Amino acid sequence: MINSVIEIVRRASALMKSSDFEIAQKGDIANIVTTSDVAVQEFLCRELETLVPGCGFLCEEEDEHRLDKEYTWIIDPIDGTANYSRGIAQCAICVGLKHHDEMVMGVVYIPYTQELFHAEKGKGAFLNGKPIHVSDRSFSNSIMCTALAVYHKEYAQICSEIIVEAFSQINDIRRFGAAAPELCYVAMGRCELYFEYILSPWDYAAASVILSEAGGMLTDLHGNRLTGITATGVLAANTEENLNRLQHIVQSRI
Amino acid sequence: MINSVIEIVRRASALMKSSDFEIAQKGDIANIVTTSDVAVQEFLCRELETLVPGCGFLCEEEDEHRLDKEYTWIIDPIDGTANYSRGIAQCAICVGLKHHDEMVMGVVYIPYTQELFHAEKGKGAFLNGKPIHVSDRSFSNSIMCTALAVYHKEYAQICSEIIVEAFSQINDIRRFGAAAPELCYVAMGRCELYFEYILSPWDYAAASVILSEAGGMLTDLHGNRLTGITATGVLAANTEENLNRLQHIVQSRI
Repeated sequence: MINSVIEIVRRASALMKSSDFEIAQKGDIANIVTTSDVAVQEFLCRELETLVPGCGFLCEEEDEHRLDKEYTWIIDPIDGTANYSRGIAQCAICVGLKHHDEMVMGVVYIPYTQELFHAEKGKGAFLNGKPIHVSDRSFSNSIMCTALAVYHKEYAQICSEIIVEAFSQINDIRRFGAAAPELCYVAMGRCELYFEYILSPWDYAAASVILSEAGGMLTDLHGNRLTGITATGVLAANTEENLNRLQHIVQSRI
Repeated sequence: MINSVIEIVRRASALMKSSDFEIAQKGDIANIVTTSDVAVQEFLCRELETLVPGCGFLCEEEDEHRLDKEYTWIIDPIDGTANYSRGIAQCAICVGLKHHDEMVMGVVYIPYTQELFHAEKGKGAFLNGKPIHVSDRSFSNSIMCTALAVYHKEYAQICSEIIVEAFSQINDIRRFGAAAPELCYVAMGRCELYFEYILSPWDYAAASVILSEAGGMLTDLHGNRLTGITATGVLAANTEENLNRLQHIVQSRI
C-alpha cells in the first residue's frame, strides 16, 4: 500500500505548482490557508478513501474529523503554508496512517526540493527510496529546529527561555518554518534536536513514523508517547541521551 | 565585468559538489571551516585577481587582508558552512566588490537551489537574470530572518529579547542559518526583515548591494550606513517604515 500512497502524494503535489493560488486568513495574520491547501486535501481524501474504504480522517483544513475507525489518515495538505505562499522551499504534503492507537505509516513530500520521505512501522525510513538514519552527533554539536509558537504567541516568552538555555549548550538553532520537514531533517541527520511548545497532530503524525523508523525519538514535553491525534508539545532527538538532555531543559522551565 | 564574475562564481560552485570534504573547527564547536571553503576561496581569489589586477581582498578564510586598494573583493567562499556541512540548502558563495568606500557589485549563488542573485550599483537586482524587488508587506505581516549570534553566544540573551519583542508585532521569524541567502530572500520578497546582532563583512557585503538594488534598506543597529569592511550588527527591511520600526525595537533594548 505504501507505494500507492507515495504515488497519490506525488500526484497531489502537482496541485501545489500553480502560482495563482489565493490566500485567506484563518484567524491571526500568521495563520493562513491557500486554495492549494484545499485542493490538495480534497484530492488526498478522495484518493485515500478509495485505497482504504471506510477509513477515518483527521485533516488540517477540515472542522469535522472522523476518528472512530480502524484506520485513520492524518493529513496536512501543506505543512508550512506561510513558506509555500512565499516560495520558500521548506513546505510539505504530509500523510500519516494510524491503525487503532498506533501510527503505522508516514509520507512527507517536499515538492520544491523533490525530497520524498516515507516509512512503515518496522520497515525503516527512506528518502527517495534510500534508507536514512539519524546522525550520531553529540548534544554539544547538535542543531535544534524550533519556533516561538507562531499560532500561540502567548507562549513566545517561555519558548524563548527554553531556546536560549538549549542554545547555550548546543551548536545552533534553526527555524525553517515547517514542522514536518524539520522532523525529517532530524531523521536524515541534517539536524539533531526538535522542540515545539505546541503542534497540531497533522504537523507531526506522518513525520513521527519517519523519525522513529530512522532511529530517532519523539515524546511530548513530559516524556510521553505521541498519540498522533492530539495537539501537544513535541520534543525529538537523534538519541535517547540527547532527548533526555533536551527534556531536562524544557522541564526545568515549564 | 559582472558576467565574468558570475561565470567565475558558477565555476567555483563545482568545488562545493564533492561530498568528501573535511571539517575543521576554527574556535567554538559552531565555527567550522571545510576543505571546500578553502578550495572555493583559492579559486575565486586567483580568478578575480586576473579580472582586476592589483585589487585588494577581504576573505573569510584568510587572516591577512589587502584593503588599501582602489578595488577590493569581499569574499565568503561558503556563507553558511554549517548548513553546507550538513547538506542543508541555504548556503552560498558570496562575492562583493568595493570601489574606494562604496560597494558597487554583489553576486550571491546558492548552488543547491541554483539561485544566482546579482546586482551592480544603479542597475537593479536580479535572480537568475530576472529583476527582483522587495515585497510591499506591512510590518505586521513581515517575516524576520534572525539568529542568536552563534559565534558570540554571550549576546544570545539580548538577541532573544529583541526577537521576542519583534515577534509580538510581526508575522513570524525564520533562522535559515546563513546571512547572505536570508538577505537575498528579503531582496526577492520572500521575507521582509533581517536582524543580526553581529556579522562579519563577508557575510553581508555582497548581499547588501543586491538588497539595496532590489529596493530594500540596510543599516547597522544605530541606523548608520554599512561599510562592507567592518564587523557590525545588521538591520534590513523591505521598506523604510519597516526598517524604522525594527530599529526602534532594537534601540529600546541595547
